[in-house]
Amino acid sequence: MKIRPLNDRLLVKRLEEEAKTAGGIIIPDTAKEKPAEGKVVAVGPGKLNDKGERVGLQVKEGDRVLFSKYGGTDVKLDGDDYLIMREDDILGVIE
Amino acid sequence: MKIRPLNDRLLVKRLEEEAKTAGGIIIPDTAKEKPAEGKVVAVGPGKLNDKGERVGLQVKEGDRVLFSKYGGTDVKLDGDDYLIMREDDILGVIE
Amino acid sequence: MKIRPLNDRLLVKRLEEEAKTAGGIIIPDTAKEKPAEGKVVAVGPGKLNDKGERVGLQVKEGDRVLFSKYGGTDVKLDGDDYLIMREDDILGVIE
Amino acid sequence: MKIRPLNDRLLVKRLEEEAKTAGGIIIPDTAKEKPAEGKVVAVGPGKLNDKGERVGLQVKEGDRVLFSKYGGTDVKLDGDDYLIMREDDILGVIE
Amino acid sequence: MKIRPLNDRLLVKRLEEEAKTAGGIIIPDTAKEKPAEGKVVAVGPGKLNDKGERVGLQVKEGDRVLFSKYGGTDVKLDGDDYLIMREDDILGVIE
Amino acid sequence: MKIRPLNDRLLVKRLEEEAKTAGGIIIPDTAKEKPAEGKVVAVGPGKLNDKGERVGLQVKEGDRVLFSKYGGTDVKLDGDDYLIMREDDILGVIE
Amino acid sequence: MKIRPLNDRLLVKRLEEEAKTAGGIIIPDTAKEKPAEGKVVAVGPGKLNDKGERVGLQVKEGDRVLFSKYGGTDVKLDGDDYLIMREDDILGVIE
Repeated sequence: MKIRPLNDRLLVKRLEEEAKTAGGIIIPDTAKEKPAEGKVVAVGPGKLNDKGERVGLQVKEGDRVLFSKYGGTDVKLDGDDYLIMREDDILGVIE
Repeated sequence: MKIRPLNDRLLVKRLEEEAKTAGGIIIPDTAKEKPAEGKVVAVGPGKLNDKGERVGLQVKEGDRVLFSKYGGTDVKLDGDDYLIMREDDILGVIE
Repeated sequence: MKIRPLNDRLLVKRLEEEAKTAGGIIIPDTAKEKPAEGKVVAVGPGKLNDKGERVGLQVKEGDRVLFSKYGGTDVKLDGDDYLIMREDDILGVIE
Repeated sequence: MKIRPLNDRLLVKRLEEEAKTAGGIIIPDTAKEKPAEGKVVAVGPGKLNDKGERVGLQVKEGDRVLFSKYGGTDVKLDGDDYLIMREDDILGVIE
Repeated sequence: MKIRPLNDRLLVKRLEEEAKTAGGIIIPDTAKEKPAEGKVVAVGPGKLNDKGERVGLQVKEGDRVLFSKYGGTDVKLDGDDYLIMREDDILGVIE
Repeated sequence: MKIRPLNDRLLVKRLEEEAKTAGGIIIPDTAKEKPAEGKVVAVGPGKLNDKGERVGLQVKEGDRVLFSKYGGTDVKLDGDDYLIMREDDILGVIE
Repeated sequence: MKIRPLNDRLLVKRLEEEAKTAGGIIIPDTAKEKPAEGKVVAVGPGKLNDKGERVGLQVKEGDRVLFSKYGGTDVKLDGDDYLIMREDDILGVIE
């Protein structure tokens, strides 16, 4: 099963972040939003600009990206967890 | 009875998702929004762009799509349940 | 008495939907919005686009339409109930 | 005393609607907004479009119009009650 | 001391309106907003349009204007009370 | 230490306004917003318009300006208090 | 590990500000927002304008900048704290 994102959306596989200490104590989030990390799995064709041309995305399949923790929508595909989000939810590419 | 959607709207037949366990216990949704799945039944002609041209939709009749669970409006046609939504509520096409 | 709607507005005669059971029990609406049905009685000339041209509506007099239940404004004309709404409140045309 | 409305505003003389029964009982408004009726007394020159041209209004002095009950601003001129509103608050012209 | 308003702003001297009865009883405002009256003292050069040209205001120094009671910002100049507001807060010119 | 504001922002040195009476009693602000006074210390290059040109500001270094009391962000430079605000927060220039 | 910001975003290393007195007492923030200081570490390629061209940023790597205290998203890279923010959150460059 594959997902083809529309417009400026992309499919991201979330990379797990450690939210517990070794002893199992959950570390509460501070008020400040922290981004999550993921890997781009599929990208849409880009949004249409005013001239009617598609503007390709700045990220591509395989890129490791930081994204806003509360952005995007969870999708379950073949038992794995993914996120569909807009390119604008991507904060930066990790190189 | 048939529906012709206007502009960038489309008519989607919802594919049932299992929200109960085998024993009949309702599984509560987590806070995170999960998309629903459906099949495109009819598409509108697309929105007008700034040049006055209609921009055709990226999905077509028969496509299986993921859409935001809270998007769209329920419609009952000949006893079946459908949804009318904008193309922008479509998260991706399942291939 | 006749109404001439302005811009992209149209006048719709609401077709009654059954909100009570045969025994007179009122069926409560679920949280999900359900559209209402109506017949287009008069249409405006359309909105002006950026070039200063009027963009005619996609629906015409006599069309049976589905519209958002909470859209539009009630108008009473010669004892009958009508709604004035924008074309954007129309979800689809029933064919 | 005369008022010259600016841009796409117009001056409307409200036509009284009966909000009490013969016995003096006030009829409560239902939740659904109902439009009010009025007569156009003066119109502005229209809004500027992107090309810098004024787009004349679709209503003219003397027209009987329906408008959103909560739209516009009350003005008292020589003891009479008027409303200044934008053309967009006009729902339709009564013919 | 003189004020030069920027863009589409203008300086208005408020004309007093009587909010008390002869006996000194304060008349409460009804829920409906009523406009206030003033005299234009200075006008800005107008806003820039999309072509980079300033669009002059429709009101000029000396005009008596009606404006939204809650619009604008109070300014005290040499002991007198003025208001700085945008042209869009002007409802009409009294002639 | 010097600040170079970006785009349509400017740096303003606040001119003190007397908020206490001679006897030291604090005069409460009325509900109506009153503007504050300041002196322009540095201006940005202006915003980009649709053609990609910078539109220079209408105020220049040394101008005495009135600005919305709640606009802008406080900055402390070398022990003095300044404000960084957008040109749009400037109500007028005092001449 | 390096971050490449997208569009008009930039990566800023926060410069510590003293929020405690020598004796360790925490100084409460006043209601008025105060900006924070940082050093630009990486800049994105700029936003696309209406003509489809990227508009380069006005700040560059190495610039010391003032930014809104509540703007941006915290990122931890190799043990150091950074912020990803839009150029619009930058109030000015310190020279």
